[in-house]
Amino acid sequence: MKEEEKERIKAKAFEYFHKAGIILSSQEKENMEIADLGLNDFERTGIVLAVYVNNSRYCAKEMVLFPRQTCPEHRHPDHNGREGKMETFRCRYGEVYLYTEGEKTKNSKAHPPAGDEKYYSVYHEIILLPGDQYTIDKNTLHWFQAGEEGAVISEFSSPSDDVSDIFTDPRIKRVSND
Amino acid sequence: MKEEEKERIKAKAFEYFHKAGIILSSQEKENMEIADLGLNDFERTGIVLAVYVNNSRYCAKEMVLFPRQTCPEHRHPDHNGREGKMETFRCRYGEVYLYTEGEKTKNSKAHPPAGDEKYYSVYHEIILLPGDQYTIDKNTLHWFQAGEEGAVISEFSSPSDDVSDIFTDPRIKRVSND
Repeated sequence: MKEEEKERIKAKAFEYFHKAGIILSSQEKENMEIADLGLNDFERTGIVLAVYVNNSRYCAKEMVLFPRQTCPEHRHPDHNGREGKMETFRCRYGEVYLYTEGEKTKNSKAHPPAGDEKYYSVYHEIILLPGDQYTIDKNTLHWFQAGEEGAVISEFSSPSDDVSDIFTDPRIKRVSND
Repeated sequence: MKEEEKERIKAKAFEYFHKAGIILSSQEKENMEIADLGLNDFERTGIVLAVYVNNSRYCAKEMVLFPRQTCPEHRHPDHNGREGKMETFRCRYGEVYLYTEGEKTKNSKAHPPAGDEKYYSVYHEIILLPGDQYTIDKNTLHWFQAGEEGAVISEFSSPSDDVSDIFTDPRIKRVSND
């Protein structure tokens, strides 16, 4: 992604953080991650991340999804003798449609990006409005999409190690940002 | 503390959460903790807590300090074979004056509640404005006070086990809220 495109996306993400009443330091703004997950399809599949803290014991970050943007299906397995990541998503702004393992929800609020359905396998829906949260256990498949207004989501979790994430879509390779 | 007094404090705390743009679920509002730490001096020494998640791996909560209110000096030691709590304080609204181990700061912004100075021993000052944060390692003495506007503080941490906290003031006994 071109630097100028990244700056455009960052500026748009700030607007969402502002709507959610979230104030970032200048360093956090600087270090904000625009993740297109190597798919080069950011408008449909991608996420913006601002990491507050990620140490050996816990992690906290804020995320922005633009309208109908999807964070694709993945899980956090045990890795190198360390327990897989457990995480709590808390909606701060907008609506989040979260899908995880369990009974398929009929008439769901969201669908995988058209053409990518083969890389999605879990369809149990949890709807998160501002003030709602949901905890995903380690090694549990999940994906999520914002509603029409976009969404701001806080994530509280055990330590974050992006490189051990396993995505259902084999085209995706997550790289470390440390 | 009388139930009616607790309700008055809760209502005031909601106003601060509102100013910080933080939305709580009705259950979180219901379960909000008004901690006077057994000192019966809540206006000067105490804190309001709303816990988002506290599992075996991580914890996240929001806290309100009213103007010039102090969370008294304490530390989180190892306990029953579990590592002491490490925690990150992030200011969301107002100003926070945090004191921890290290060189004493001259002309500090805050002082212990008058008459309680003997229960305070660390005076290295960190000032947190909205968007600022600071991480306290396990077993490290710390206390904090809000500025004139009060403060809303997010805490991200390893699991929270209130009963193992050690306060410098021997009159304080923290009880579990689980």
